[in-house]
Amino acid sequence: MKKQAGTLYCIGVGPGDPELMTLKAQRLLTQCPVVASPVTGGEKTMALDIVKGAVSLAEKDILLLDFPMVSDAEILRQSHRRQAEAIARHLDAGQDVAFITIGDVSVYATLPYASDLLAGEGYEVVMIPGVTSFCACACALGRSLTEMQQPLHIFPGSFTDVKDALSLDGTKVFMKSGRQIGSVKKALLEENVKAAAVVDCGLATQAVYPSLAALPEDAGYFTTVITEAKP
Amino acid sequence: MKKQAGTLYCIGVGPGDPELMTLKAQRLLTQCPVVASPVTGGEKTMALDIVKGAVSLAEKDILLLDFPMVSDAEILRQSHRRQAEAIARHLDAGQDVAFITIGDVSVYATLPYASDLLAGEGYEVVMIPGVTSFCACACALGRSLTEMQQPLHIFPGSFTDVKDALSLDGTKVFMKSGRQIGSVKKALLEENVKAAAVVDCGLATQAVYPSLAALPEDAGYFTTVITEAKP
Repeated sequence: MKKQAGTLYCIGVGPGDPELMTLKAQRLLTQCPVVASPVTGGEKTMALDIVKGAVSLAEKDILLLDFPMVSDAEILRQSHRRQAEAIARHLDAGQDVAFITIGDVSVYATLPYASDLLAGEGYEVVMIPGVTSFCACACALGRSLTEMQQPLHIFPGSFTDVKDALSLDGTKVFMKSGRQIGSVKKALLEENVKAAAVVDCGLATQAVYPSLAALPEDAGYFTTVITEAKP
Repeated sequence: MKKQAGTLYCIGVGPGDPELMTLKAQRLLTQCPVVASPVTGGEKTMALDIVKGAVSLAEKDILLLDFPMVSDAEILRQSHRRQAEAIARHLDAGQDVAFITIGDVSVYATLPYASDLLAGEGYEVVMIPGVTSFCACACALGRSLTEMQQPLHIFPGSFTDVKDALSLDGTKVFMKSGRQIGSVKKALLEENVKAAAVVDCGLATQAVYPSLAALPEDAGYFTTVITEAKP
């Protein structure tokens, strides 16, 4: 570990409701003088907005890190490098940094790219788990995600082989499927699989759809689709 | 909804570290005069032990609900019925009840059997999500659970087709695999899949195994095995 440098805390701040932050997230965010937050096309500054609901950010340094929504590997690599450098300047000054993400830090989060670079350079990196959006969506629907001996499958918004996914036993969750909700809906109907959906879970705009029939094709970025446990 | 009856709050209290409880779990457990906790062969009163680390239980009614570890459907049905009746006595008296489970309330939790019965009888049931053990295990290992466009598959301890599971793309998680760690290890070795494991995540007895080679065959009930994202 780098001596005398600050510690990087990578913190999942939960799906949207500030009260779904953990006690540990609240304590570390209160203690750290620097909060680094991603800014993305889909999520904007959502992680920071969640934190504001439970922690005072007065007198803290807020580091807004731009995450470009592109697929070009070289542009992404440069972006992660710039994020890591911006954080390292504070760590090198002996300041602890809270690096936040919505949901959980290990499930389709954007921050591991920069934090892995910093860990590789010898900085101390600590990961703090958070509540995932799919667990919060299941609660909003008032249902369990799992059946006794059946598995649970989570697919990211970029996943395209929906029909292949539906052939698996157990519950299937399609996260952030807003942009391709049409193709998810079509596959579910064709395979005769019952499913429910939640849009903007935990936010003021939350909408719950116990069946997919009423779900609009232009549902927002934060649309989570959950199938029945049995196909 | 039943008028004048109390509300049943089903609350996930996270994987073990009391600081991984949510702010909402802490608030509701502080407010509710009754706390219902499962007692099982594998977990004992673990959920209640977690709560004690963050909430004072003084002057609360503690309802210990026996969950028999049997597969006989009729014995289980009777057990869930007794649990629901014990909770209903408090709800009928106008008391709110916090019904707790380790991890998250929608992922392989035991409480939905009783809470679904109560919801079916017209009681108001509210589910509060918590941090799952597999997210906390990934953080203890300092790694992400997912790769960009790859899925994430969660298998319960009772799942037996490990080789079938390993044929899937993406990360595979085997929860509570302590009792059958031998067969999980054997399948991983035969299929040449790299994996890590965490035993007793968040507890004083936590042990982290970056590779499976050193994991003892008699690792405890709370052993979580996580494969690499790519097979």
